[in-house]
Amino acid sequence: MYDDALTREQFHELSDAVAQDDGARIRSIIKHLPPVNQARLIESSTPPTRRLLWANIADETQPEVLTELSEDIQSQFLERMEASEVAAATEGLETDDIVDILQQLPENVIQDVLQEMSWQDRHRVERVLSFDEDTAGGLMNTDTITVRPKFTLDVVLRYLRRHDDLPNTTDSLFVVNSGDEYVGTLPLSRVLTSDPSMTVREVMVTSVEPIIATATDREVAQLFERNDLVSAPVVDSNGCLLGRITIDDVVDVIREDTDHNMMGLAGLDDDIDTFATVRKSLPRRALWLSINLLAAFTSSTVIKMFEATIEQVVALAILMPIVASMGGVAGNQTLTVVIRGMALGQISRSNLGWLLRRELTMGLINGIFFAVSVGIMSYFWFGAWTLGLVIGLALIFNLLNAAIAGTVIPLVLKSMKIDPALAGGMIQTTATDVLGFLSFLGLATIFYG
Amino acid sequence: MYDDALTREQFHELSDAVAQDDGARIRSIIKHLPPVNQARLIESSTPPTRRLLWANIADETQPEVLTELSEDIQSQFLERMEASEVAAATEGLETDDIVDILQQLPENVIQDVLQEMSWQDRHRVERVLSFDEDTAGGLMNTDTITVRPKFTLDVVLRYLRRHDDLPNTTDSLFVVNSGDEYVGTLPLSRVLTSDPSMTVREVMVTSVEPIIATATDREVAQLFERNDLVSAPVVDSNGCLLGRITIDDVVDVIREDTDHNMMGLAGLDDDIDTFATVRKSLPRRALWLSINLLAAFTSSTVIKMFEATIEQVVALAILMPIVASMGGVAGNQTLTVVIRGMALGQISRSNLGWLLRRELTMGLINGIFFAVSVGIMSYFWFGAWTLGLVIGLALIFNLLNAAIAGTVIPLVLKSMKIDPALAGGMIQTTATDVLGFLSFLGLATIFYG
Repeated sequence: MYDDALTREQFHELSDAVAQDDGARIRSIIKHLPPVNQARLIESSTPPTRRLLWANIADETQPEVLTELSEDIQSQFLERMEASEVAAATEGLETDDIVDILQQLPENVIQDVLQEMSWQDRHRVERVLSFDEDTAGGLMNTDTITVRPKFTLDVVLRYLRRHDDLPNTTDSLFVVNSGDEYVGTLPLSRVLTSDPSMTVREVMVTSVEPIIATATDREVAQLFERNDLVSAPVVDSNGCLLGRITIDDVVDVIREDTDHNMMGLAGLDDDIDTFATVRKSLPRRALWLSINLLAAFTSSTVIKMFEATIEQVVALAILMPIVASMGGVAGNQTLTVVIRGMALGQISRSNLGWLLRRELTMGLINGIFFAVSVGIMSYFWFGAWTLGLVIGLALIFNLLNAAIAGTVIPLVLKSMKIDPALAGGMIQTTATDVLGFLSFLGLATIFYG
Repeated sequence: MYDDALTREQFHELSDAVAQDDGARIRSIIKHLPPVNQARLIESSTPPTRRLLWANIADETQPEVLTELSEDIQSQFLERMEASEVAAATEGLETDDIVDILQQLPENVIQDVLQEMSWQDRHRVERVLSFDEDTAGGLMNTDTITVRPKFTLDVVLRYLRRHDDLPNTTDSLFVVNSGDEYVGTLPLSRVLTSDPSMTVREVMVTSVEPIIATATDREVAQLFERNDLVSAPVVDSNGCLLGRITIDDVVDVIREDTDHNMMGLAGLDDDIDTFATVRKSLPRRALWLSINLLAAFTSSTVIKMFEATIEQVVALAILMPIVASMGGVAGNQTLTVVIRGMALGQISRSNLGWLLRRELTMGLINGIFFAVSVGIMSYFWFGAWTLGLVIGLALIFNLLNAAIAGTVIPLVLKSMKIDPALAGGMIQTTATDVLGFLSFLGLATIFYG
């Protein structure tokens, strides 16, 4: 449990109230915090504390706190709620936030919750629910303000003044024709700086391409990043305006995307929360360890082929982890650079050759450098120049192998539609381990045989 | 070289023009692309192609292309430019973008470039240059539009109409008193929806805390993410308005921050570009391999202590990588979860105990499960139950060790002000390797001794 909006004293008092299971005191402390900080307090708590905090959040702030929580925690709380409670806990939220929450629930419960909503809310939510979570349609809000091209800005100004406020993160109005087709964007800044007698058609911007609802969230994020957008229109395949996507939801996509690369390399689920229970975390961790066990047994099988040589020269057993580990680290460097380059859309057929040559050049330079260092050290350690020669040659071979494996594996995986960030690290380590042991012990068998 | 704004035909034509070193054809193809796509084309190119493309970008688009490039590539181009060329290539950019570019240059060149600028630009740039790159001051723009609290909205509307357009990503005006002190924020949406006869003081929002110029960029990013901001005011220590930070710059910070965690775990420089030359990449890679070599030699030293036992039972050499690698994978999982939790500010003294207990519980469950599996497999492979028992016990020990190392190492590093994302992985692997070999070979020596 932690949040930087609390003073040290408040934090101690809250810890104390939690320890004593004192609901009234918990309520009185957290009710002064903004919803986003209440959510962070829950996120940084262990499961038992979490339930206690959630139970003591004021009814009226529940929706806002719920939407700030990560999906994993949302679903833990939602599991224990009735359909009518879910409907109450999502009331007043933006459409995309309601949809994010509903998507944690089983299909039949979603239907029950929809029945509990007002007609208007239900209609908006159903429209967004029909799109996949990871598409532009799933990210959008339906709270667009639309104007017609023939209006003058004066009319637009009077129309806006009839609103109490505009939806959050509204930097533009969208211009649609009588068939609801998107024709342009009218930035609020232009409404404010242009002559009120001009028409929307004269002032609107048409250079912003609308986003098709079926575009992936990654594509949406790239578009926002490259064009420094704050909001963008979403249309169906006929060009009719469906809603808009705002930068705050895109920031979440970017966070998840980069998180995914990092967590994936360790074989972890990327949307798991830091304080997930053993029951929740164990299956994924054990699966990854099982896959690694297979890889490790493969290495052992290779070593076993050279049992006789090791029996003869025990120093081989002592030095053998060096060849494998140096290859592993070098391969991991190449792999990380390539996976990142692929995620940024920078790697294509036209520059792949250059990239592989660069990695091989570095593998060769590092290989020769470390071969000489390790060779000399081994000679002094074991007093046998053959051993130094064998480990040196094996190191050069394995660093070249690492350069090739690190470049080729993610590309092959991608062409097989397997996520390189997930499987790449394990396959690459297996390659540098197996070929590292094979080259070192194989060369030793030749030299000592 | 690659960008998705080019059709397949255009791309082939461009590749062709690049291969033939045909500047005129390159110019005619790329001049139709938006600057951001020209920049991406350069970023996804190898160094020789890059220089050719850059030389053929139209003078008037150079500033915009330059600002879209990553720092690493900017500095490559800037190195070859005269002060007057730099001044020309940054003309018309936003202040923070000019500053980002200048910060790549040596101090004396910066002064030369400043002399080439208009008085007004120089003044704005110098103000931002005085702040560190990674602070709110270094991120800010000075293009704020300010109004006084006593103005009516009608006056504000007339004042805005005197502008041709508002600066990019302007969603709010800032309200300052006669001493230039920040007193509130006036969202454009409120200007549009409120009664024009109301005063700024009545309509402005005072719940947005201004950001102190010395706040770190990470703190700024957290503030934007938690409060879904589009722009925020920056003030000096006296509360005087200095400028504003906009979401597009914050998105870059978020990208870099998560990138840093991923690249750091592989020992890589996080602002390096995918197509950096060997000369640029080699030192960092070689350094990391050297550190790993020390770690690997430590493992070898441990193995050497048990030379006699291995000589007696060669099967130990065959199975020994299994214990180390299972510990390494488990430790890496724990480490990744903890580093991510720390980056999100979720881990504190109050939940650390719970976290460690959870990791130990999973280490024990996985340990027992894999001990039994590996023990049985080893028995069948080598026909010796002692070996199965030894490897099983060593596995349980090393998975518990991995749980502790993965939790404690990042926290200790952080308290020593060392970046856990950079050094954590290497130290953790060394711990699981060394203790893995030590427990397995040590137990074997006891059982076979």
